Amino acid sequence: MNQANFYPGPSRVYSNITEYIYEAYMEGFMSINHRSEQFMELYRNVKAELRTKLLVPGDYEIIFTSSATESWEIIAQSLTVKGSQHFFNGSFGEKWASYAEELTTVTKTHFGINEKLPTGDIAEGVDVLCLTHNETSNATMVSMESMKMLRAENEGKLIAVDVTSSFGGVKLDYSLADVWYGSVQKCLGLPAGMGFMILSPKAIQQAENIGENKRYNSLVRLLENAAKDQTSYTPNVLSIYLLYRTQQVSKGIDYISEKLTNRMASYTDLFNKTEGISFLVESEKLRSATVLALTSASPDKIKEKALDRGIVLGSGYGPWKKSTFRIANFPALKTKEVEKLMAFFAKYY
Amino acid sequence: MNQANFYPGPSRVYSNITEYIYEAYMEGFMSINHRSEQFMELYRNVKAELRTKLLVPGDYEIIFTSSATESWEIIAQSLTVKGSQHFFNGSFGEKWASYAEELTTVTKTHFGINEKLPTGDIAEGVDVLCLTHNETSNATMVSMESMKMLRAENEGKLIAVDVTSSFGGVKLDYSLADVWYGSVQKCLGLPAGMGFMILSPKAIQQAENIGENKRYNSLVRLLENAAKDQTSYTPNVLSIYLLYRTQQVSKGIDYISEKLTNRMASYTDLFNKTEGISFLVESEKLRSATVLALTSASPDKIKEKALDRGIVLGSGYGPWKKSTFRIANFPALKTKEVEKLMAFFAKYY
Repeated sequence: MNQANFYPGPSRVYSNITEYIYEAYMEGFMSINHRSEQFMELYRNVKAELRTKLLVPGDYEIIFTSSATESWEIIAQSLTVKGSQHFFNGSFGEKWASYAEELTTVTKTHFGINEKLPTGDIAEGVDVLCLTHNETSNATMVSMESMKMLRAENEGKLIAVDVTSSFGGVKLDYSLADVWYGSVQKCLGLPAGMGFMILSPKAIQQAENIGENKRYNSLVRLLENAAKDQTSYTPNVLSIYLLYRTQQVSKGIDYISEKLTNRMASYTDLFNKTEGISFLVESEKLRSATVLALTSASPDKIKEKALDRGIVLGSGYGPWKKSTFRIANFPALKTKEVEKLMAFFAKYY
Repeated sequence: MNQANFYPGPSRVYSNITEYIYEAYMEGFMSINHRSEQFMELYRNVKAELRTKLLVPGDYEIIFTSSATESWEIIAQSLTVKGSQHFFNGSFGEKWASYAEELTTVTKTHFGINEKLPTGDIAEGVDVLCLTHNETSNATMVSMESMKMLRAENEGKLIAVDVTSSFGGVKLDYSLADVWYGSVQKCLGLPAGMGFMILSPKAIQQAENIGENKRYNSLVRLLENAAKDQTSYTPNVLSIYLLYRTQQVSKGIDYISEKLTNRMASYTDLFNKTEGISFLVESEKLRSATVLALTSASPDKIKEKALDRGIVLGSGYGPWKKSTFRIANFPALKTKEVEKLMAFFAKYY
């Protein structure tokens, strides 16, 4: 770990991870059965920590998947009857729509990276509205205000939100949607290899009404098991254990969110006065709190130069691959790493 | 790890796991992107080790899944056109058939635990023959001889084999089947949370001919990515790393298989002369090499007594839940643990 890793993909993991893994080994968590009392207790504990530290409501169920990609499938397969409408301004939201299209009728609603979520633009005959809270490809974020408007105008519909790169870093108002999904390798600071879904009572009801149960990841199966604090198949127990332990020592989302906001303010100051580097997204209000996308004439050169100094910057993604580079503003990144990054830009640009 | 864990589910993990995890952390493997050169190199390396140490043929592709349960779905979804025939004598083979039934036409062929695989009993109109090499629920194992007969008589069909609790412990003749699948928490001695599939050129061809590509785990998608040493979605990189490192230091399947055979011979001697305990399966030739199922008047009492002495025995499973207890004969179990177990039975029974 000589390098400071600011890649907004799998990024820095919490530095006490190896300690917790050793603990998991010593306490036998690497060998427990997913129908055992020990596992059920762990599942109860991790749910409780997520409710306390990340404020997940008590009546929202929490389940684990293999990845956020799998959640795309589960939403289309187990929660959608007529069709889903996808609002997107970047690559991940668009990929979600393409995946869903294989299984259901999809309406694609594209909006610009400098525009708000078009909450008034609702298609006919859809039962699920899908949006990407934090679009990792271009570092935009949908505000809770926009989501509030969407919710207010669409009482009868389910709302599903991709929070892959914001869950654990940004304070969310869970009442504004029914499905919140993501994975553990971004703001949760864990090794890659597990996803999660958080489901409102309305989403649970819809899964039961539809009753789709043909698949190993059919939502009714996953929910039936989750209600017993079990899983339908052998899960990544170690990852669940690490999520539990890291949340247990977490100072909570208010603290984390403030830390990230302060860091972002410093980055904003810095890049506003750095010649040749600008934010891809013009309005601060539309920018992500957890990822920065910055334009420059030669992102590759900047990345190379940074790498020489032990700093890994993220490449651009999709349409912004060549014109931008990205920086993760994830909670597990250390203050000294952030300072190193700031010093690098202050000195060389 | 004060307890010796002989549960034939997730069982003992290799004791150098925590060391390799620390290594993975220090080398940044917990934070790598699954499209990066570092990941592709890891994937190439793990494939190479599995070919060297477990003798997986060079023209068989190796892919990773979330679990063996997911492989049930993938076989039915992406490799079966007309239907699949399932030979089973226990719970896991039967569950596989039930899962497959949701997606395709299934013929169920039950055989007794004291009978050989009924290789002559082939149904009309099936394109995939499915069998459980090592049935963990009752500790039976299908011999390579039976599989040879099945293969010889069914040239036009795919053969899919569940090796969840034998892969890494028993020497397999891969030429006798087209799909070999399982998971890492049994004979591979790793923490739970990842499955694998090994696919013959014929299976790959069949996946391409069928071309099913609607799912996040559609086989053509998985294979397309595997051919580039990538995965279609963020995988459990840490588990792949651990598989690589443990195989790298492994003495190979001949050594491991001999070790397990010797241990099984000692167990057989012991239990043949232990009053009140008998093997569930009468013929030694039909018994599993990696799991023991033993009948007794009071399995619960034996398990309790063992637990008092720091030994975890496995419960019976399915129809044999009350009448048997089980013992894992997995490679990661240490000689001193095996000796402790033998001493326990020699002394108390």
